[in-house]
Amino acid sequence: MKPKRIIIIGAVASGTKTAAKARREDPDAEITLITEEAEISYASCGTPYFISDIIKDGNSLIIRDPDYFRKMLNVDVLTEHRAESIDPETKRVEITNLKTNQSLILGYDQLVLAVGASPNTPDFEGVGYGNILTLHNIPSAMHIKSLIRQKRVKNALIVGGGFIALEMAESLIAQGINTRLIIRRDQILSNFDKDIALLVQNYIKAKGVQVLEEDEVGEFKADADGNVANVITKKQTVPAEFVLLATSIRPNIQLAKKAGIEIGPTGAIHVNEKLETNIPDIYAAGDCVETTHLITGKSVWIPLATTSNKHGRVAGINITGGNDTFPGILGTFVVKVFDWTIAKTGLSEKEAVKNGFETETIIVPANDKAHYYPGSKRIIIKLIAEKRSGLLLGAEIVGDGVVDKRIDVLASALAGKATVEQLSKYDLSYAPPYSSPMDPVITAANVLLNKLDGKTSSLSSIETKVKLDKMDDFILLDVRSKPEHDSGHIEGCLHIPLNELRSRIDELDKSKEIVTYCGVGLRASHAHRILKNEGFEDTKFLEGSMAVWPYKIEK
Amino acid sequence: MKPKRIIIIGAVASGTKTAAKARREDPDAEITLITEEAEISYASCGTPYFISDIIKDGNSLIIRDPDYFRKMLNVDVLTEHRAESIDPETKRVEITNLKTNQSLILGYDQLVLAVGASPNTPDFEGVGYGNILTLHNIPSAMHIKSLIRQKRVKNALIVGGGFIALEMAESLIAQGINTRLIIRRDQILSNFDKDIALLVQNYIKAKGVQVLEEDEVGEFKADADGNVANVITKKQTVPAEFVLLATSIRPNIQLAKKAGIEIGPTGAIHVNEKLETNIPDIYAAGDCVETTHLITGKSVWIPLATTSNKHGRVAGINITGGNDTFPGILGTFVVKVFDWTIAKTGLSEKEAVKNGFETETIIVPANDKAHYYPGSKRIIIKLIAEKRSGLLLGAEIVGDGVVDKRIDVLASALAGKATVEQLSKYDLSYAPPYSSPMDPVITAANVLLNKLDGKTSSLSSIETKVKLDKMDDFILLDVRSKPEHDSGHIEGCLHIPLNELRSRIDELDKSKEIVTYCGVGLRASHAHRILKNEGFEDTKFLEGSMAVWPYKIEK
Repeated sequence: MKPKRIIIIGAVASGTKTAAKARREDPDAEITLITEEAEISYASCGTPYFISDIIKDGNSLIIRDPDYFRKMLNVDVLTEHRAESIDPETKRVEITNLKTNQSLILGYDQLVLAVGASPNTPDFEGVGYGNILTLHNIPSAMHIKSLIRQKRVKNALIVGGGFIALEMAESLIAQGINTRLIIRRDQILSNFDKDIALLVQNYIKAKGVQVLEEDEVGEFKADADGNVANVITKKQTVPAEFVLLATSIRPNIQLAKKAGIEIGPTGAIHVNEKLETNIPDIYAAGDCVETTHLITGKSVWIPLATTSNKHGRVAGINITGGNDTFPGILGTFVVKVFDWTIAKTGLSEKEAVKNGFETETIIVPANDKAHYYPGSKRIIIKLIAEKRSGLLLGAEIVGDGVVDKRIDVLASALAGKATVEQLSKYDLSYAPPYSSPMDPVITAANVLLNKLDGKTSSLSSIETKVKLDKMDDFILLDVRSKPEHDSGHIEGCLHIPLNELRSRIDELDKSKEIVTYCGVGLRASHAHRILKNEGFEDTKFLEGSMAVWPYKIEK
Repeated sequence: MKPKRIIIIGAVASGTKTAAKARREDPDAEITLITEEAEISYASCGTPYFISDIIKDGNSLIIRDPDYFRKMLNVDVLTEHRAESIDPETKRVEITNLKTNQSLILGYDQLVLAVGASPNTPDFEGVGYGNILTLHNIPSAMHIKSLIRQKRVKNALIVGGGFIALEMAESLIAQGINTRLIIRRDQILSNFDKDIALLVQNYIKAKGVQVLEEDEVGEFKADADGNVANVITKKQTVPAEFVLLATSIRPNIQLAKKAGIEIGPTGAIHVNEKLETNIPDIYAAGDCVETTHLITGKSVWIPLATTSNKHGRVAGINITGGNDTFPGILGTFVVKVFDWTIAKTGLSEKEAVKNGFETETIIVPANDKAHYYPGSKRIIIKLIAEKRSGLLLGAEIVGDGVVDKRIDVLASALAGKATVEQLSKYDLSYAPPYSSPMDPVITAANVLLNKLDGKTSSLSSIETKVKLDKMDDFILLDVRSKPEHDSGHIEGCLHIPLNELRSRIDELDKSKEIVTYCGVGLRASHAHRILKNEGFEDTKFLEGSMAVWPYKIEK
């Protein structure tokens, strides 16, 4: 039998993974990797750490070089070669050698498009000036690092509020650069709920990042050398000798489109579970394809390295005659920003509502380890569930404690279609250096269960702030001790410590709505249940209470 | 309506949790907590860290004091009171006040037995001498700590090889004490598979713990003051001015037995999912009860703080008229020993086999973070699956990297009855400080999937050692580079680097069994597949290879 000819276009994550897996499955196939870039198999996710010098050596971001693929895996690697077009009829790819400008044509039996995504460059006036950059590969990271090393950047502006924006904000602040971040809306991390995003926003501000909220770049102004010097925004003018454009990215679909490959509703390449496109023997994998969201069942385009690597395995198996499927994603995400970890899996509350779910949610602050164990830190968990069924829909977790473990437990729970009730009984590990006997995830599930069971009602910080701003006629009841109350409280609250609540209950008007609050929500919830049992009909507790209150505190 | 009278006997984890939950559910109930001890609601799991001075203040181990229960929760707390007997007919408990020796009788509507477990004291000769102790509560921890502080302990002997034994070994070594650990068998951690336990055993030996294997205490010898001075074992005599008995514990069932409460096949109190005993209105919770193993469906007694706390919630809800259930456990377990974390969930391979499962297993070493991110460390994962269905049955993970996150993901996967295939597609979080794009759990699942799919075959270190010891006629093939081979290899191996394997394949005898090995198993598995494809019929790779080889290395 003639060996299979496999061509893989793109050689970062999914492309190289596909090649390596295909080789293990089929020792005889002729495998060719084609990429416009000079490097292959590099870790884009590591670039912010290279820029901040946490990773000293840029080469360590290169996982495998072309030589490894040639010698160890017998894979032909064409770097600095651009695939110009694909002819599905004759099963041939037209390629340009970018070093020599020569054309070559290669035939394939199976083709994999692993062409990734690219940053969008918004068409701001002056966007072509020097030192207005994007971060998307090793050369762009080198460029930014050398720019910073020249020490001529005093002020930087980051356009966007997503995870690359946040990682780079940390990186720039760490290097003593006056760093601004400009966002169109009033919150960073637009795929997070506002109550959680505001906590992160307050945190990065405390770390020195200036956040220009509800603002937009109007025009860039350059110095005499043609390098960016100032930015005129909708609201102000700020100095910036370096601008990072981190607004959004788009899938690279030009080549696919030209070949007649179906583009899905999200604007990325559409594939089935086997990663086949609509054209026989053409597969697509990684950042250029859309996939199914496991909670909504809808097509989504959420490019992540984790998906790309899994895709590589699936594509590698299928193009060599095997049978593997990729069921879809939860969009699980984690990012380190200064000492905080910010993570999400499944749907946010607003995404759940948008997708037609009736939701019940909770925010619970908890210690990441036994509270008495040195180094125990706080994390803040938001759980989102379907009201009717109690099915878990998603979670967001932030804080300076161990967040990633909990988001992975929740991602696993979502994969198993767990209800909040089932989650509350999970047998998670415990010893004092790792958790509490009731892991924070389980505590959060229990608190949400009380709501789902109709035993408690609560409000989020944002809902409470809206009531305060509207001057609603309600009692905001601080049930902490006097010293706690005096050290800082929400303006306009009434103060009755929890242990005096029963004896002073007559001070409260039963006809009024009462919202209780405390330090983290535990005493507030207890007070709320006491009031409910005493016949107060309209009472709620403030979720997470002072621990998650993102607004002004009165002293 | 008259308020419910609730009596809870036992006031550590499940007892206090039951009381607190019952109070939130029923504001009017008369709740009484009874305990023989002076403290309530303390964290036994923290005592080794108190002894090693990681936790300075013993009071921080007390989570809530009786005052909190009285004032904040309106729960009556009788410390230093012993429940002598229960009369289910008249629904009364006879109690002795241990301070005054007076008797009192209390009636109940609902009773909860949360009486815990106690260490077994083996009947060795001389076991009554001074400084032969167990560790089971705050006073016993105080006793041990003060003994060590007097600096008269130069040598310590720990009897047993379970997690308290290991935690205490670390604690004693940290305080400069010559520490021996004596075990009857040839492995510590008897609920772990030997291939994993041996890695931990080698590690603690490297940390200075002397492990007396396949040995037993015969007799203790005392000094002139009646304190232990020497221990005569089956094999040797060792000095010991302090002996910790950490062999085993047993559920406290005397009170239950006397009252006619059913004891289950494990020797612990039998309860249903609602935590009801066979006697109406008597519940039992925590360390004194047996529960269902979620993988085998059988009754097990695995006392853990996590279960006790969950039991407290379930019992608290049910005794106040609600309806909650506890489905069972996986026995998920984690312990820190020096810089290693040792964890398990579900069944070990030997437990799975014992329970009638035909298993397929794998051992995979992996980095806990992106390999280029500073501080990335190694963990070693063993997965156990059912061969026929591919259902995950259990996992063991050890190493100095982040182990607890992965065991919790696997515990969640087990809760969702995931197959290895499903696990391999889990959407876990990734950023360089937290994981690799393919989390170690997913990599391990993929490697096991290759075995389940019949694409690869492998041997464990122990299986390979048995073959070597039996002088089996097989080729042990080292496929690493020459420098790697020369720096240390398994005796009797043949050496052909992976990149020379194809060209030198004629050097290998096709009729022989070939076991390949490398650094961590990746190249070995690749070599194995090359050989298989070249028509070698009996080839396997050594799982985890040198990274998990617990035996002598030849240089």
